[in-house]
Amino acid sequence: MDEIPGALGTSASLALRLGQSLFSVASLLFMCLDVAFYSYTSFCFLVTVMGLVISWSLTLAMVDAFSVFIKRPSRQPGIISVVVLGDWVLSFLSLAASCSTASASDLLIRSGSPFCDGNICSRYQLSAAMAFLSWFLSLASSLFNFWLLPNL
Amino acid sequence: MDEIPGALGTSASLALRLGQSLFSVASLLFMCLDVAFYSYTSFCFLVTVMGLVISWSLTLAMVDAFSVFIKRPSRQPGIISVVVLGDWVLSFLSLAASCSTASASDLLIRSGSPFCDGNICSRYQLSAAMAFLSWFLSLASSLFNFWLLPNL
Repeated sequence: MDEIPGALGTSASLALRLGQSLFSVASLLFMCLDVAFYSYTSFCFLVTVMGLVISWSLTLAMVDAFSVFIKRPSRQPGIISVVVLGDWVLSFLSLAASCSTASASDLLIRSGSPFCDGNICSRYQLSAAMAFLSWFLSLASSLFNFWLLPNL
Repeated sequence: MDEIPGALGTSASLALRLGQSLFSVASLLFMCLDVAFYSYTSFCFLVTVMGLVISWSLTLAMVDAFSVFIKRPSRQPGIISVVVLGDWVLSFLSLAASCSTASASDLLIRSGSPFCDGNICSRYQLSAAMAFLSWFLSLASSLFNFWLLPNL
């Protein structure tokens, strides 16, 4: 039962959570720093979703750190189910936000919008790429925990 | 083993497949009919993905119809795995395409682009909504088949 790497409470899971938080923070910084992101719906959506992902991943990273460094708590099927469901929903939301942002920034760049002066739109693209990586790690977490579920 | 509705070879699965094909065809028609969709990347992406979903769903609808009306073939774990994986990948692609299209058409409408004359951009939005419904049905198919997998 303890051999599944990436399941809740292992060091691989801690690494995945830290990666998710890192990419989400990077995406949020690329999007928000010094940019008027709130004029477009999809950028606001990205900021909302990344905020959710950061709080979710940091909470679970704390649980993992506690479990790795101090003492392993008992795994209950109910808690694992909630974690799997939350990861799953957040991974869909991250994918949707990253695709909307990529599409909107591509459109803004191609139409030569005055909004894109001074390389700002390439920062939106970087932000979408970071959100995409965060989606990938969320999905991995969700799958590893889902794999654990039938063994409980 | 036969009680799971929506798994490959049942009438519920046939209904899901027909629904997917219907929504994908509707999305493709809203996007392509009389509209220069190929000027934007995300619209081309939607057309590609919907083409894939239509061929995949119609093929599996034929398998289901054969199984429902003529004779039930044996279910092999390998085949079900391929179906689950294909549904899963296609559902991610449909979600990505639908979000990109929704974001791009929203941006085009809000920027008052001359491309949107004559209510064309609301057709893009309808197309994105149809792709979203098709995503939902693909996901349902994938989950039902995945549920069947451990019983084989």
